[in-house]
Amino acid sequence: MPKFNPLVARLSPPPVPSVAAWAKSYDGSRGPLLDLSQAVPGYPPHPDMLAWLGEAAASRQAAGYGPIEGEIPLRTAYGNHVAGLYGAPLTGRNVQITAGCNQAFVATVIALAGAGDTILMTNPYYFNHETTLSMLGINVDIVPCDAKSGFIPDVDSIEASLHSGVKALALVSPNNPTGAVYPAALLGDIFDLCRRNDIWLILDETYRDFLTDTAEPPHGIFSIEGWQNHFVSLYSFSKSYCIPGHRIGAITCGMQTVHQIAKIMDNLQICPPRAGQIALVKAIPALADWRAKNRLEIGRRSAAMQAVMAGLDGWKLEAIGAYFAYVRHPYPDISAEFVAGKLATLAGVVCLPGDYFGEIQEGFLRFAFANADVETIGLLRKRLEDFKLPGI
Amino acid sequence: MPKFNPLVARLSPPPVPSVAAWAKSYDGSRGPLLDLSQAVPGYPPHPDMLAWLGEAAASRQAAGYGPIEGEIPLRTAYGNHVAGLYGAPLTGRNVQITAGCNQAFVATVIALAGAGDTILMTNPYYFNHETTLSMLGINVDIVPCDAKSGFIPDVDSIEASLHSGVKALALVSPNNPTGAVYPAALLGDIFDLCRRNDIWLILDETYRDFLTDTAEPPHGIFSIEGWQNHFVSLYSFSKSYCIPGHRIGAITCGMQTVHQIAKIMDNLQICPPRAGQIALVKAIPALADWRAKNRLEIGRRSAAMQAVMAGLDGWKLEAIGAYFAYVRHPYPDISAEFVAGKLATLAGVVCLPGDYFGEIQEGFLRFAFANADVETIGLLRKRLEDFKLPGI
Repeated sequence: MPKFNPLVARLSPPPVPSVAAWAKSYDGSRGPLLDLSQAVPGYPPHPDMLAWLGEAAASRQAAGYGPIEGEIPLRTAYGNHVAGLYGAPLTGRNVQITAGCNQAFVATVIALAGAGDTILMTNPYYFNHETTLSMLGINVDIVPCDAKSGFIPDVDSIEASLHSGVKALALVSPNNPTGAVYPAALLGDIFDLCRRNDIWLILDETYRDFLTDTAEPPHGIFSIEGWQNHFVSLYSFSKSYCIPGHRIGAITCGMQTVHQIAKIMDNLQICPPRAGQIALVKAIPALADWRAKNRLEIGRRSAAMQAVMAGLDGWKLEAIGAYFAYVRHPYPDISAEFVAGKLATLAGVVCLPGDYFGEIQEGFLRFAFANADVETIGLLRKRLEDFKLPGI
Repeated sequence: MPKFNPLVARLSPPPVPSVAAWAKSYDGSRGPLLDLSQAVPGYPPHPDMLAWLGEAAASRQAAGYGPIEGEIPLRTAYGNHVAGLYGAPLTGRNVQITAGCNQAFVATVIALAGAGDTILMTNPYYFNHETTLSMLGINVDIVPCDAKSGFIPDVDSIEASLHSGVKALALVSPNNPTGAVYPAALLGDIFDLCRRNDIWLILDETYRDFLTDTAEPPHGIFSIEGWQNHFVSLYSFSKSYCIPGHRIGAITCGMQTVHQIAKIMDNLQICPPRAGQIALVKAIPALADWRAKNRLEIGRRSAAMQAVMAGLDGWKLEAIGAYFAYVRHPYPDISAEFVAGKLATLAGVVCLPGDYFGEIQEGFLRFAFANADVETIGLLRKRLEDFKLPGI
């Protein structure tokens, strides 16, 4: 048998399904399973959204091929939405629709870097970013972040990591896995650094719609003249509209970048799936209030998660943000993967171990608290209080 | 501004939209536009299919994430279908669902080869295969095919092209662009050659359901012991079910290959879009008669295309198959791209120039005759008869 591509063969299997296997082995003895593993909203899509999706999918229009860059009405609607959110002169021509934000990342990195080039990421990182770069033979260099600074990177550390092979810096804010929200001023400084060094800043803003502080835009980069030459913003409709199964995301970037990315998207899948796109044209304006309500609900879940962790012996909430809490577990000498496995099978609490998100993350667990309602999150307190690793 | 990945920057823009621009410039003076450019069926999806799509898309189930490898009921239904078609012991565990066949190809080649490796293709080739490999830095070596042999490759030419860097041979049968149907015995011999040389055979069978001769399976490779170690078959639901906008395709391969490809698919898009998958579970068994009827209809269109070309002065039908006709145009010294542009703007006939499909293809035009009904295809005769390049 010929060898598989060694860059793929050495990747670990996707972590979320492995964790689901732990969950299956829980016997229910401590009460209902508390699933805080996958980053999915724990409430359903709006009924109107489901109706629009059904209507679009049943149409002859949605059955045919669509434009490679995405439906023009959706590019326009999302361009206008982003223009309003950031107070910047963006239009649909700055938008490429993708099948979700993982695909947005793949298409973007292929446009900006090839095998042997380097992309900088933070540690910890979103694991699919790391596996995507690895499978493409793009080198990953790591900017360290730590609990002391709330897992927020600093400009000096990024600058110290630059070298001639670096084509881009890829950040996630609000962060996955830590939840950390990077301040707008910091993002502006990081953009300046990237521009001075003529590299791209890729910013994954999947969890942007769940920021509780909405007084200011998440950052001001889109208002900087020439942003198009050094900035790409990624987004997912999956979380905000509760439609991950329909696979719709977006890239916001300069028109020259759209032109390059469209060539890649044509190879990756010709056009993004259409029914979800058509439904979103209605949903972006019509469900603004519903999204605002969900933002408040996620805020309440965040507060509930903070209450669970407050004064919990041996556990420490190191960071929390729009969707995730990053928590230090009480067993410094034992890997988070082992702890998370036992938490699932013995306590019925499913989360992702820090090990999956980078080097020296064995002390941490990621809780996707958005996945559960306030009452369910409350159950977590006693589960964690009572939890003891057997034989320790 | 930092440079884009040069492998992407040097790709031409996707050809189908450029051709659509030619079509727009036709003034209608010769009658209705005859669009034989994109490989799409010229009839709508079955009404039941649209109803099932609508129903699935409106469900809460389809809104959530699904399995990376695809919905288990669809993998089972398609595995059973393929097992029946080839008379081979295949199951759902041999199936990875993708967002269309371009994505099936991308995921497969990433699993089998990395930058600097080589994949063999025929000339002419399906352009997205070439651009996919180019953007990934995978070298493309070409096995020549020519009109004399009906654009069917021979084993000796493939063998002569092998070298130590070759990881796979990628073929398309029924072929795009030529329409050529590779005989089952030849495919068996080619598989033997690949196995002896320990390389993979990738076979894109997107147009398989439109073969008019159904007495025998398209090939017997799935019945050869150990096929899993050297063979990957690709398929698209887009053409057979008229649902390209829903983006569903499939890879049929060994379970070890599914395991590797799932890691790539997780990076490319987590899971394929779900509504189309759920609808196809019903459609595979229920629409068998409808697909058989369409197969006959495409056969009639093929006959109509052959009648158009019979004895047409200066034009020559060089190959025709399940979806495409590959035609020599009357201007040997003028590029097909120029001829196709003038055909669109002056005669209202839209097709793709051979130039888009490889080297020394300037003499040929690809007509996607499946895109038009028999009556419309009939109109082509007079358009081509009357066509003269201005100034020639």
